[in-house]
Formats: sequence, C-alpha cells, structure tokens
Amino acid sequence: ITASICTIGDEILIGQIVDTNSAMISKKLNLIGVKVESMVTCSDNLVDIITTLKRALKNTDIVIVTGGLGPTKDDITKVALGKLSKSKSFVTNQRQLKKIKELLSSRGIEMLEVNKLQASVPEKSTVIVNEVGTAPIMMFKFKKEEFGRKNLLVSMPGVPFETEHALPEVIKYIQKDYKLDNITHQTISTFGIPESLLSEYLKEWENSLPKQIHLAYLPNPILGVRLRLSIYGLSKQLAKKEIDKQIVSLKKIIGEHIYYIGENTPHNVVGEMLVKNKATLSTAESCTGGFIAHLFTSIQGASRFFYGSVVCYDNSIKKNILGVKEKTLNKYGAVSKECVIEMAQGVKKKMKTTYSIATSGIAGPTGGTKDKKVGTLWIAVSGPNGVQTKTINSNSTRNINIERFAAHAIDFLRKCINNKSI
Amino acid sequence: ITASICTIGDEILIGQIVDTNSAMISKKLNLIGVKVESMVTCSDNLVDIITTLKRALKNTDIVIVTGGLGPTKDDITKVALGKLSKSKSFVTNQRQLKKIKELLSSRGIEMLEVNKLQASVPEKSTVIVNEVGTAPIMMFKFKKEEFGRKNLLVSMPGVPFETEHALPEVIKYIQKDYKLDNITHQTISTFGIPESLLSEYLKEWENSLPKQIHLAYLPNPILGVRLRLSIYGLSKQLAKKEIDKQIVSLKKIIGEHIYYIGENTPHNVVGEMLVKNKATLSTAESCTGGFIAHLFTSIQGASRFFYGSVVCYDNSIKKNILGVKEKTLNKYGAVSKECVIEMAQGVKKKMKTTYSIATSGIAGPTGGTKDKKVGTLWIAVSGPNGVQTKTINSNSTRNINIERFAAHAIDFLRKCINNKSI
Repeated sequence: ITASICTIGDEILIGQIVDTNSAMISKKLNLIGVKVESMVTCSDNLVDIITTLKRALKNTDIVIVTGGLGPTKDDITKVALGKLSKSKSFVTNQRQLKKIKELLSSRGIEMLEVNKLQASVPEKSTVIVNEVGTAPIMMFKFKKEEFGRKNLLVSMPGVPFETEHALPEVIKYIQKDYKLDNITHQTISTFGIPESLLSEYLKEWENSLPKQIHLAYLPNPILGVRLRLSIYGLSKQLAKKEIDKQIVSLKKIIGEHIYYIGENTPHNVVGEMLVKNKATLSTAESCTGGFIAHLFTSIQGASRFFYGSVVCYDNSIKKNILGVKEKTLNKYGAVSKECVIEMAQGVKKKMKTTYSIATSGIAGPTGGTKDKKVGTLWIAVSGPNGVQTKTINSNSTRNINIERFAAHAIDFLRKCINNKSI
Repeated sequence: ITASICTIGDEILIGQIVDTNSAMISKKLNLIGVKVESMVTCSDNLVDIITTLKRALKNTDIVIVTGGLGPTKDDITKVALGKLSKSKSFVTNQRQLKKIKELLSSRGIEMLEVNKLQASVPEKSTVIVNEVGTAPIMMFKFKKEEFGRKNLLVSMPGVPFETEHALPEVIKYIQKDYKLDNITHQTISTFGIPESLLSEYLKEWENSLPKQIHLAYLPNPILGVRLRLSIYGLSKQLAKKEIDKQIVSLKKIIGEHIYYIGENTPHNVVGEMLVKNKATLSTAESCTGGFIAHLFTSIQGASRFFYGSVVCYDNSIKKNILGVKEKTLNKYGAVSKECVIEMAQGVKKKMKTTYSIATSGIAGPTGGTKDKKVGTLWIAVSGPNGVQTKTINSNSTRNINIERFAAHAIDFLRKCINNKSI
C-alpha cells in the first residue's frame, strides 16, 4: 500500500512556513506499513489542487491532503474536493458544527457565518470531527474505475496540532480499510551519547541482528537518540519475543543511558520517578531561562512533584533570591561549578524541595571567553545526600543549545537519583 | 518566471527529516520575483527522479533540485541528471576536487575514491563550486525544443547549511539569465484578534483591495495572525507606495493590534521597547511555568532588559517568595485577579524591575471548576504607574494553551505600555 502527501498553501510555497505536517503524517503511515512515495506542495489554486490530487490518486493508493481549510477566503481546497468526489452538494456536518460552537463559545468568541461554513462538507465525504479545531477531517473513497486503484483520500487541517490530534483516528480507519503487512516497531529511548558514538558502541550488536530486524537512529536535542527496531513479517507475539531478547543485549551495552523502553520524554520519566518516591523538585535557571521549568510544567499533573523555579538571568537575582555569594561570582564567575552549587542549594532550601537542578552557561551565539567558550554549561543537582556537578559543551544555535542544556540537566538528575549519588 | 523545487531523499519521505531547504530556497526565489509553483519530494530511485524532474521541467521554467548527492548516493541523482541532460560522459571538475581535498585535509580525513567521485559531473553541466561541502552545484540549460520552455535546472546539496551558502550565487545566475516579473511581499504582524474575527473586521477593506494585491492570513498561537500582502506586477517603488497606503488603512481598523510592520515576534518587539525605554522586566509564572521567561531568554541579548522569573507552580512559592497573602489565596483562589496582582507586585519588588508580568490559570486538560473552566487565564502587568489585569480563555491542548497564555500576557504588557496605563 502506497501513499502521497499533498500540502496545500501559498504560505509554504513562498517559504514563509516550513511544512512539518508531511513528516509527522509520513512517520505514522510508515509505522503501519504504508509507504509514502511522494510529498508535494501546491498553491491555493483550484486547477493546481485538482491536477495535483488526480495525479496522486493515479500513482498511490492513499492520498493525504493537509491545509487549505481555514475560515478565510484564500482557502479553496474544499471546492476542489467537492469537484473531485463529484459531490452534487455540500451538507452541514452537525457534529462538527456543534464542536465549532463549543470551541468558539469557550473562547468567548461569537459564531460568524465563516465559522458555520467550516462545518459544510461535500456530500460524498465521511467526516471525522476535528475535536481541537474548526475544520473537519473529510474522507473520500474512490472506486477502481475512477483512477485505476481503490483510493482513499483524506483531507486534514493545516494546523499541525490539529492534524496531530486527528491522525490516530485516520490511521485506525486506514488500518481497517486496507490489508496491511505485519510490522512491529519498538522504540528504545536513550540520552547522553551522541548518535555517531552510539553507532560505534552498537556496531557489533547491530551486525548480529537477524535480517528481518531493521534499526534506525532518531536523534533529537531534547529526547536524546531514540533507537527504533522494526520487525517485518513476524506476528506480534513472535516479534515481541525477539524484541525482548534484543533489549536485554542493549541494556548490557548502554544500560544507564536508556531512560525508557518505548517513547517517552526524559522530563516525564524523571517526573514519574519523583512522584513514585514522593519527592519534589525545584530549579534555578540562568542560561536555560525557564526552559527546564517549562518542560516539567508541560506535563499534565506536574504539580504532584514540581514546586517552581527561580530564573536568575541577572546576577542580582542569583544573589538576592538564591543567596549566591558575591565572592563566588567575583572569584569564579556565574558560569562555574561553584556558582551552580550555590544556586542548586539556594533554590532547594528556598522552595523546600527534595531535589533541585541549577544551570549556568553561555547559550550564544556571542558572549564566550577564551576559558569559557560559547556552548559551555555548568549543571548542579542537589538532593538529600549531597550535590553533584557536571559540565558539558554544545555547539549549535542559541535555541538548540538551550534545549540541549535543559535536557542534559534533566538527564543528569535522573542518573544521579538512579545511582543514589545525591 | 516559475519554478519547482524538487527534494530527493528517502529520509524525508519516511518523515525522519523535515525538509527546511525548500522553504529557504523559495523565500529567496520569491524575493527576485520567481514564483514557486510546486514543491515535491521523491525517493532515491532513478525512475522516480527522472519522472519527477521531467514533469517539473515541463511545468515550470526553473527547477531546483536538492539532496541526493551524498558520497553514497550520488550515483543515482547524478546518473539521472546525466541522462536528462543527454550528457555523453562525466568529467572531473578540478576546482571542486581541489576544494574536496582542502575540506577533508582540514578535518584530518583521508581522501577516498568516493570523495573523488563527488567532483565528477555530467559534461553538460556548469559547475558552481561548493565552498563548504564536497558535492558541487550543477546547472543545466535546456532549449525550448526539449521540454517546451527555456529551462534551467540547478542541482544543490541536501545539507541546509551548504545550500544556504551556495544560494546567493545561484540567485545571481538566475537574475542574469531571466527577465523577471516583480512581486513584492509585505507582512503585517498582529496579535489579539482571532483569524475569523479579523477577517470580518477586514472584510470591507479586503474587498476594496486592488486586483494585483493578494491577502493571506497566517495564524500562530505565539505570533498571532500575520497578514501577508503580495503585490504582483508593480515596480518595487510603486509597490511600496501601494503597501504604505494599505498599511495606513489597516492601522485605522486594527491599529493597536498591529505589533510590527514586517515579520517579528511579540516578545522581541516588547524586548526592544523595553531596551529603548531603558526599562527592565521580571515575570511571576504559575500556569505558564517559565514559558514567558523562556520566550524572552530565547532572544540574544535578553540580559539587556530581562532580569528573571519566579515560577511559582506550588502555592507555597507564591506565598513565601512572592508575598501573596494566605488570605488572598483562601478567599479568591490562585486563579484570580487578586492573586495575579499580588504576584506581579511581589516579583517586581523582589527583582527590582520597571515592569512585571504575572500569570495564573488552568492549562488543562483537567483541573477546572464550574466558575473557573480549563483554559481560564488571569494576567496582571505592573509598572511604574500601576497595575492592570485581564482574563482570557483558550480552548486547546495543554501546550497550545500555555503558548497562548504566554503570548497574551506579553501582548497585554505591550498594549499597557503603549497606552501608558501602567
């Protein structure tokens, strides 16, 4: 089974927006064994849209369309879909209309005619309600006579989080509708070893993998390197056995760096560890500027373990709120082992938490010195049994550096709690 | 003059990598009046590549190919380009070979046969040397007899940094080679009115726009709704005049919601306002959990105006560090006007800043009550002349709610500073 992904929108064609939807959708299709053969972006133009979609329907079984569904008038995807499906009329989808009303009223916004029109769909479509946005997901089936294949066309919103939300429903629908090969995937989440080094560590193990197992490395500044094992052709049960065997081998090689068997985030894993231990956490952040606190508070139920943070961007805050000594700042500077220790101890005391994390570094792109280069980070973690420090270096853009800094600090806390060193 | 951008690479089709090259190239082409009509990604497969490129050459004047030129892959893309250009042989480009030698020796890597092969190009290509990578930029010209147009095909490396580096040379070449139409784009960044309402407000104005002006709405939780005016056919000078006229009209309708003429972020605009006024800022964040601080500290040079933040996720922090009264919390709750006022005043005093922002709300997805629904936010901003509050509602995922909360708080500060109410 093959698929195409068609993205509609002038804002992508003129380069104002980077298309992230296609990669997100493709990932999910791959996981169920649907092969994406092409991705294409076309303009908000009726003829272009119809030409592009027709070609996609001829070449691949499934066509996913994203974008072009906003309430404003530059969006004409729906007209194209009506023509393509030979729908004689448009009908209002009552479930989506209800959802639109709910969404708008909860935002205190009056419902306008343009909003109502969003619930109007070509009569030949099957609708999946968009629970988090106003544009419905529309599905169209085409018989083999039309484009030479049994086609499914799915139209999804352009807003990435709305597409993300609706994707599981769409994937389920595709799985029901097509007979798909067996593929089992297992992700093993690691943090702390860069991809190139990791592949060296795992070389021997990788070469010994059975032929039907494929290994992929998926690096990310916040999530670390996730390893994905894909097993082709085996039943779920046999695949699981094989996976369990390989995980045992992996643990022997890179045990402490594996933070989760499956997909998870390092901050969520640490959060669960803290909740389980009835422990609490605070942070004192200089260069990470609140990003560690943001990662933890992006977890639903963070209040079970996360108390708060002092973002001490200015040195006066380090002194006045966290109690870092003037002497320490003068002698060692803010980006130093000595400073982060005092920050970690200060915030832990002030917020009365079990553990604390402190960071101070140079996110760049300017501001480094000979001794302390751009990309330098000092981390301290403090707990009931002491304090530990670590320094790392990241060599990237400011924002990637901040992400990496935060992730390394969180990973350091996880490792220190695990080996009971704090 | 029209263009297509073709990206080659299985890693993009399986969703492992997001294609950022196409947007980067498209932006530059747009600036010189080349209209990108399609973007397409195809796999590392000879037939696919040739089919895709032939179609692009038939449909558009210029075709930019990126990717598929790594040392392990260059056979396929280069073979395709050789066939397409009817090159009878491959020749070694001596300038690129020299550059490859230099690059490898500076990294301490020995030159291998695969590296040498990278300098080998179809005889019909014109080469621009890749100064920062090993794969040369190849250009091919096609006469009208071949695909129905006077075509230019440019093959660029897949590594974004290398493409970025080579792009100015390529753009110069295109400008020399084609007589180009004029397109002028102007973005107007707004915050505070949702897209659908904004389009209602602007309906009359939009309908009165001259035909050669096209309007697009680009919504984003953090950036607000950006309006993009595209003017076709006019000279830069006349287009600018027309744009200025339309901006005057827009300001009359939604003046206070326009935060920038052009592309910018609300936090950056506020940051610049503060620097200009020699003012400083602190934040006290409950539900936004450090995200406001993160937005400000993601700005290079944030230390010029941003002092710090107290993330007071737990109520004990609100009391102990910010000085929120027990009575206030008991009587009104943490998500209340009264609480955010005390938070804003508390952090401003503690951090000795000119202004402060405080947020308290329910990011969800659970945790609301009858009176205070999920998605409720209270904001307070405090300044030299007083304090102002505002409440808003957002109905989305936890993370989008947090983003919207933060953006609304920042926008509220901007508006209060502008109208001198704090």
